[in-house]
Amino acid sequence: RINGDRLWDSLMEMAKIGPGVAGGNNRQTLTDEDGEGRRLFQRWCEDAGLTMAVDTMGTMFMTRPGTDPDAAPVYVGSHLDTQPTGGKYDGVLGVLGALEIARTLNDLGLKTKHPIVVTNWTNEEGTRFAPAMLASGVFAGMHEQDWAYAREDAKGKTFGDELKRIGWLGEEPVGSRKDKMKAFFELHIEQGPILEAEGKDIGVVTHGQGLWWLEVTVTGKDSHTGSTPMPMRRNAGLGAARMTELVHEIAMSHQPSAVGAIGHCDFHPNSRNVIPGKVVFTVDFRSPEQEILDAMKARFEAEAPKIAHELGLGVDIQVAGHFDPVTFDEGCVTAVRNAAERLGYSHRDIVSGAGHDACWINRVAPTAMVMCPCVDGLSHNEAEEISREWASAGANVLFHAVVETAEI
Amino acid sequence: RINGDRLWDSLMEMAKIGPGVAGGNNRQTLTDEDGEGRRLFQRWCEDAGLTMAVDTMGTMFMTRPGTDPDAAPVYVGSHLDTQPTGGKYDGVLGVLGALEIARTLNDLGLKTKHPIVVTNWTNEEGTRFAPAMLASGVFAGMHEQDWAYAREDAKGKTFGDELKRIGWLGEEPVGSRKDKMKAFFELHIEQGPILEAEGKDIGVVTHGQGLWWLEVTVTGKDSHTGSTPMPMRRNAGLGAARMTELVHEIAMSHQPSAVGAIGHCDFHPNSRNVIPGKVVFTVDFRSPEQEILDAMKARFEAEAPKIAHELGLGVDIQVAGHFDPVTFDEGCVTAVRNAAERLGYSHRDIVSGAGHDACWINRVAPTAMVMCPCVDGLSHNEAEEISREWASAGANVLFHAVVETAEI
Ligand SMILES: NC(=O)NCCC(=O)O
Ligand SMILES: NC(=O)NCCC(=O)O
Repeated sequence: RINGDRLWDSLMEMAKIGPGVAGGNNRQTLTDEDGEGRRLFQRWCEDAGLTMAVDTMGTMFMTRPGTDPDAAPVYVGSHLDTQPTGGKYDGVLGVLGALEIARTLNDLGLKTKHPIVVTNWTNEEGTRFAPAMLASGVFAGMHEQDWAYAREDAKGKTFGDELKRIGWLGEEPVGSRKDKMKAFFELHIEQGPILEAEGKDIGVVTHGQGLWWLEVTVTGKDSHTGSTPMPMRRNAGLGAARMTELVHEIAMSHQPSAVGAIGHCDFHPNSRNVIPGKVVFTVDFRSPEQEILDAMKARFEAEAPKIAHELGLGVDIQVAGHFDPVTFDEGCVTAVRNAAERLGYSHRDIVSGAGHDACWINRVAPTAMVMCPCVDGLSHNEAEEISREWASAGANVLFHAVVETAEI
Repeated sequence: RINGDRLWDSLMEMAKIGPGVAGGNNRQTLTDEDGEGRRLFQRWCEDAGLTMAVDTMGTMFMTRPGTDPDAAPVYVGSHLDTQPTGGKYDGVLGVLGALEIARTLNDLGLKTKHPIVVTNWTNEEGTRFAPAMLASGVFAGMHEQDWAYAREDAKGKTFGDELKRIGWLGEEPVGSRKDKMKAFFELHIEQGPILEAEGKDIGVVTHGQGLWWLEVTVTGKDSHTGSTPMPMRRNAGLGAARMTELVHEIAMSHQPSAVGAIGHCDFHPNSRNVIPGKVVFTVDFRSPEQEILDAMKARFEAEAPKIAHELGLGVDIQVAGHFDPVTFDEGCVTAVRNAAERLGYSHRDIVSGAGHDACWINRVAPTAMVMCPCVDGLSHNEAEEISREWASAGANVLFHAVVETAEI
């Protein structure tokens, strides 16, 4: 069994870097705080005898050697970056839980046949630079690296420049190791309410929802809120409001197999006495079923222009992120389920509502995920909380699944 | 007659300070650019023989002495601050048109019995610091100065600190001259489409619309857009969208005697994969009729909480700005109408859709306004445009009304 107190102490230590304003974290990707978190993680890994490689997307691969020099490594990890008002566990638990495997093997004096590579993927959250799961997506061959480098944050800074600026642009060509991976395992908090509601210790993740992110620009005309007669207005804010309602309606019509919302929305020029001439927002549609997922996007693309037309507005819709629904590897899923069973934890199969690096890596290597509950299903909120016991249970299942796959 | 070319050249010269991104201006109140614009205006006034006084709200009073030292001055002016994406004429025409009166009197070697005071009121726009017409409102006794000093911009900087920082905190107690004003005249572009559509040179402003600005905070709960089931969401963005529709519906139900819109709206935390836990926006309701104006506010205050309740949201509504509908002084209005008539300009009576410093000053001194057309009725837009002829006509009417009131 892993050392639950050591894992918890490391979680609390990491949470001191990039503190939020309400008890959580703001350690967004490629900020100075991300750099500081990476250095702490590097130090911990090196203290545990792991050796570092960093790829050209900034992803950190920390290797514990195996006894067979030719054996394909088993990868395990998640991400250290957070939302702007994020929690202390989303991503971090999966990285430090993976480190805890190496520390526990050291305690036990055990070697595995296959190397174990503790991994921190760059920019999983996708808030600062869309899309989410960017480095794992490039690694898996889903995006071009040049395209990823050109992603811009809200201030117009690029991913490539910021990666260099914080000093984490590595030399290993991204994806060069993807053909020699025995498996990838990721531990993550559920970020939803199911496990806690049913009193289960462990979620055995069999599938992941697919996603469409659509960046929508509604164009009207800046004009005076007082002296522009109602019939002459081209109010982009009113158009955005009707499209918000449309997104909600579309998601509700596929209940319970779909979700949809708008999380990001910017008014321009955003002045109290100016009719907004431009509103830019991002739609987030998800479903575990490919057909529903694509139907939601198609309906939005068909109806949003009608809303715009009725109000004399223009509308432009661009894809800002996408992944298909995922079915995880049967062998890896079984390893997770068996580990939970063997350790005596209550468990259930579950579909991941969120996207994860595991969803991309599943395309290049046998992959599975372990989930643990979180309080009130709350995530992407500084108040995100888990118990020490949940963290330990998740890390124990991860440990057993990884060690079984890496072979003692 | 005033010198139309000189007026136009001054307008173009002032527009070089705080250029926008699309041919207009961004010279928001109490920015460095505002300071620079004030210094240029001060130099021009002093070159024309005017002497400066600045009050504790930063308002600039530039006096051309009268022949009777005891006669109450005639005030004339507007504001030099602009919207973030504003035009070159909104406010500026009224200030430089007033300066042109002094220059023309100098050319003609004429003295008036009453002093003429060319005035630049601080923070008319209200974008950076709500409410609009802030300094004229304090001058007229509608707000406390301490309250005005404490107004904050989006970055938390206060009006008082910024006024000091740019070096325009004057010593004259605000409002000390309000009991000795013969009259106040303000020239302004219409900011609406009526004069241009009817081919009129001049609007004789008889009334002004009243306004309510309501700052609304909708509170939900930050949570993950992917893994939070639809029934568990408390989506503040959806609430804001429904309230946007409500504002539109309320305004449409009073057509054509009301307008309403939301120009400013901020999502929190504004991340693509976070259900917005908080949205803050400002409603702008206007009507020339007191009853309609107050009914709009009352209906919003009654129905917005119902929308919030249905979605499990909280809502808080605060007044961020208010003025009652205005009836301008009959004597001053007649002076404007007579001037237009005498000069042979086509004219019509008009209600101002926008708020102006004249609306507050009308409470402490006989006041009227002159309007000139603007292209497509467009204002609060960098593309705001007027012709040289419209500017000259407006300034000529202003000149005649002011000089008649100040008595040669
Ligand atoms: N796990 C997680 O929050 N990932 C970010 C990408 C997503 O929004 O699903
Ligand atoms: N004239 C003008 O745009 N004033 C700003 C206050 C308002 O929104 O009416």
